[in-house]
Amino acid sequence: MSTFYAPSLQRGQSHYQLSEEESKHCVKVLRMQVGAPIELIDGKGLQAFTILEDAHPKRSILRLESSIFHDQTPALHIAMAPTKNMDRIEWYLEKATEMGLSKLTFLLCEHSERKQVNMERLEKIAIAAMKQSKRFYLPELRGPIRLEDFLQQHPTGYFGHCEEGEKIGLSGLKNTLPFLIGPEGDFSTTEINAALQSGYQAVDMSAFRLRTETAALLATTALLS
Amino acid sequence: MSTFYAPSLQRGQSHYQLSEEESKHCVKVLRMQVGAPIELIDGKGLQAFTILEDAHPKRSILRLESSIFHDQTPALHIAMAPTKNMDRIEWYLEKATEMGLSKLTFLLCEHSERKQVNMERLEKIAIAAMKQSKRFYLPELRGPIRLEDFLQQHPTGYFGHCEEGEKIGLSGLKNTLPFLIGPEGDFSTTEINAALQSGYQAVDMSAFRLRTETAALLATTALLS
Repeated sequence: MSTFYAPSLQRGQSHYQLSEEESKHCVKVLRMQVGAPIELIDGKGLQAFTILEDAHPKRSILRLESSIFHDQTPALHIAMAPTKNMDRIEWYLEKATEMGLSKLTFLLCEHSERKQVNMERLEKIAIAAMKQSKRFYLPELRGPIRLEDFLQQHPTGYFGHCEEGEKIGLSGLKNTLPFLIGPEGDFSTTEINAALQSGYQAVDMSAFRLRTETAALLATTALLS
Repeated sequence: MSTFYAPSLQRGQSHYQLSEEESKHCVKVLRMQVGAPIELIDGKGLQAFTILEDAHPKRSILRLESSIFHDQTPALHIAMAPTKNMDRIEWYLEKATEMGLSKLTFLLCEHSERKQVNMERLEKIAIAAMKQSKRFYLPELRGPIRLEDFLQQHPTGYFGHCEEGEKIGLSGLKNTLPFLIGPEGDFSTTEINAALQSGYQAVDMSAFRLRTETAALLATTALLS
């Protein structure tokens, strides 16, 4: 059964109209015909089973048969400085979405080399990974925002950095707190001190030197377990 | 300092000759001159600090100044069916090498769509990731071998599959045992039964449907912790 992402889907709706792009995909590309079953998910827990009622190439209409609301999955918030290479952010997002990421915030740090990310492209990747992994929640994508602003909004959490200092292990972390991952050049000493003073705990992530996206991935699996 | 991979390096050697390709890279690309410091690692724990003594474009000679032997890192053996798309295997290997993978075996399963992998290309990726992450051990790459042969060689371990059945959690796994990851179409029922009968434990990997390489990554982080 084909699945469409329907962010504006409402519980109790009797019919749903696909957007122009989706109608084209449904009728022209997938060649679906009246009576075909189609699944809708809104990325906020709602899953609906529908039947294609009007196979219009621009304004297809689906009739809702039944719907299920899936409970929210545990919080899992990673805040990372974007990597220089967009591919690395993209695959991290794909993997983390499959695993259960609920929020990804991009941080602007002193040593950030990339200040902008294509949020629209990333949202498409998250939607595809959500559908592929049969999740019903789309991770929220935010930022980029400055690290100091993030610390004001989220005064406690975890972070990894490469300087010496007291660090806790990767196990037993609370998934209600965000995990910060710095840029390729690491957090600056000023940033490390700001995070520690705010109430962040430094985490010893590996015996080896990790790339930014590998660190983000380890942080994700640590918050999962 | 530049690092070269020197698999034939011996402890106690006084000089080391770079291969023709490495000599060219060292002298022509990096434009290193006599007296330049160069690090050698053999991928089996040995790290040597050397000085470029003869900057020959085909047969450069390094003089060893000192060497350190690094203890073996914990075993971490993943055996996976290669994914259809080679890119996905490649990035898995890069990430897992950074994290501490010690052995990767490729499995041939009933539902395997890919039967061959370019081991030479994968070895280059592992070498680059080893250098990047400052590890001193190169993961061993093996296979592809048939699942039934693998089970004979390794009669116990862990595996993930998508069918119903008794499964243990992802935490508390012993890293001395291999973790098997099936192909895109999952292990067949015959294979699942063969693994269970041999002495493998099925592991509940996620509430969501994971891609092969995402499952391999979760297995890797589970054996790490």
